[in-house]
Order: sequence, then structure tokens, then C-alpha cells
Amino acid sequence: MNIDQTLQNYLDDLASSQPAPGGGSASALSGAMGAALASMVCRLTLGKEAYAGVQQEIEGLLSQTEKLRLRFQQLVQEDVEAYGQLSACYKLPRETSEERAARTAAIQKQLVEAALVPLEVVESAAELIQCCQRIAEIGNATVLSDVATGAILASSAGEGAALMVRINLRSMKNEALVAELGERLSKALTLISEGVQRVRRIVGGRA
Amino acid sequence: MNIDQTLQNYLDDLASSQPAPGGGSASALSGAMGAALASMVCRLTLGKEAYAGVQQEIEGLLSQTEKLRLRFQQLVQEDVEAYGQLSACYKLPRETSEERAARTAAIQKQLVEAALVPLEVVESAAELIQCCQRIAEIGNATVLSDVATGAILASSAGEGAALMVRINLRSMKNEALVAELGERLSKALTLISEGVQRVRRIVGGRA
Repeated sequence: MNIDQTLQNYLDDLASSQPAPGGGSASALSGAMGAALASMVCRLTLGKEAYAGVQQEIEGLLSQTEKLRLRFQQLVQEDVEAYGQLSACYKLPRETSEERAARTAAIQKQLVEAALVPLEVVESAAELIQCCQRIAEIGNATVLSDVATGAILASSAGEGAALMVRINLRSMKNEALVAELGERLSKALTLISEGVQRVRRIVGGRA
Repeated sequence: MNIDQTLQNYLDDLASSQPAPGGGSASALSGAMGAALASMVCRLTLGKEAYAGVQQEIEGLLSQTEKLRLRFQQLVQEDVEAYGQLSACYKLPRETSEERAARTAAIQKQLVEAALVPLEVVESAAELIQCCQRIAEIGNATVLSDVATGAILASSAGEGAALMVRINLRSMKNEALVAELGERLSKALTLISEGVQRVRRIVGGRA
């Protein structure tokens, strides 16, 4: 499992000519780092007298950011698997018309999975940035730049993964599904770009 | 050394209430991932007949992106060390006026280091995005979205690290140095924001 690799090994694999891990997996890891920074700021707010009034809300936010971190960590690996399965479909035999039909069906099925994994990265990034916004409002003021960095890393996770979603949507033939997933993608990207600007404004005002 | 930790351990440390690793280190790791993706696209261009005319230039770019990756990897750790040393200075005794003067001098000296490490992350990110731009122009067209994701991750590395530079500049008393480092920061951030837009345009046009 990728997440038990050393940073050095993961980065070496990312830089190698093997196409996976690639941009989707790296985006998920960027999301995991963003979630971790948001969690750190929550933990540095808990137990502090100056923030006594927000302890319960911060505890709720911490449980959300840690849940998102766990999900991003899984997505680091799931993206590699989805990519590997899609690559395997493209290598299926295509001698006979039956083989060609089976290959096309397999590719189309796997393209959906290969789009859904990075789409979940984008949607989780949007959710994380909502958390960062509230943490920026009520969290420990001495570490606000860490929650802003968390939001920035979440935003690039979303933008990077969005490129991978679009590539897979482009090859999908089910137009209704392409439209549906495209709409989910746009909605999440809007939340991300608006949210990250809001976090920057809040942190700029409180810092 | 941080880079030999597992991803899981690094993320757990980042999420913990220990203030380091924090946003500066995570930004450096985002830069290392961006450089790794740029290297991957170079490697997937080398040895391909369709790209015979650009082999030598791609080899040069790969050597630059791998050099930047190595530097980012070191900065993941150096940021933790610079932060630790600065924290230690703040804990120096301040009973007597001599102690107070020595403590202030130590803090001021260490603030420079704590600003220079994330500043190097920002400047390296700017350099990496210049590489990504050329790779996007001449690299293997089937993996362009990976180089775009690389540029996006480099951009958030630069933006996240810039927040850490600014925090340290704010406490520095040497105004000439603050101005000088602030200027280097602005210059690098402009290169980053212009460069990442350019990469997106090139990739959008070629994909």
C-alpha cells in the first residue's frame, strides 16, 4: 500500500517513467497534507483557555478534517489502482469483433471508475476548504497561516485532480453521465475557488 | 530524516499538535511532487520517435527538474530544522538585560534562516514552473495533464511557503533585509502566477 512507502520511494515512483502514480495520486496526497494542516490547527486550538468558547465546534471540525485526511490517504492508492485497471482494459485483445466489443465495454466501464476517483478528490477538497474557512474564523490565531496553507494545498489537489477527471470524461460515451459528472466537477471547483479566496481574506484580516 | 519516513508517519506528524512539520515543510513536499511529475513527463518523452527532435532539450529539462526535486526534498527537512531552532531561541532565558539582549540577537539571526528556507521553496517553485512551461510546449502530448498538475502543485508550494516567509519577515528588525527578501518574494510569486497560467493555456491548446 502506497501510504506505507517512504516519501523518498513515493517521489521516486512519481518521477519514474511508470505512468502511475501520476497527477491524480499526487493531487490526493496534496489533499491529505491540506487536511493534516487543518487538523494541526484544530489540535493547537483545543485545550487553550483563550479559545474556551469554541472547543466543541473545533472538536467537530477536527473529526471532519481527520475523516477527510483518511479518505485522501485512501485515494492516493485508489487512483493508482483505477489507472492500472484502465490501462489493462486498453491492452485487451481486439482481433475479433466480439473481442473489440468486449474491450470497448470494459474500457467504458473502467473510465467511469477512473473519473470517479479524482472527482472524489475534487469534492473532498471542496469539503476540506469549507472546514478551513471555519477554522480560520475561530481557530488559534498564532497558526492561521498553516490553515491558509492547508486550504491552498487542498485547492491544488482539487485543480490537479480536475484535469484527470476531464481527460476521462472526454473518452466516455455515456453522454448523460458525462454531463452529470461534469456538473458535479464544476460545482466543486466553484466552491474551491471561492472558498480559498475567503480563507485568504479571513487569515489576512486576523493575522 | 523526514524523507525516509513513510507517507503515513509524515502525515500523522503534520496533523499532530507539534507545530513542526507545518505549512513550510508541506509546501516543500508539494514542490517535490510537482518536480517529480515534470520529471515523469520528461521520461515519457525520451526515447519516443515522435519526439526525436527534442530529445536533447528534454534531457536538459529532466536534469533541471530532478535537481529541483532533490532540493525540495531537502527543504522538507530544512524547514522543520529552521523552525525548531527558532523555537529554541524564543525559549532562551530573559531574566537579566544581558540575557534579553542575547535572546533578541539569537531570535533575529534565526528569523533570517526561518525566512530563507521557505523563500527558497518559493524561488524553486518559480524555476520549476518555467521548466513545466517548456515541457508543456514540447513534451509527450499524451501526458500533458501531468505536467499541468505538476505546475499547479508547484504553484501551491510557492503560495503556501510565501505565507511562512511573510510571517518571519514581519518579526525581523533589519529593514533593509526585510525589503530585499520581500522583493525576491514578490518577484518569484509573479513568475509563479504568470507561469502557471501559461502552462494551463499551452496544455489546453495541445491536449
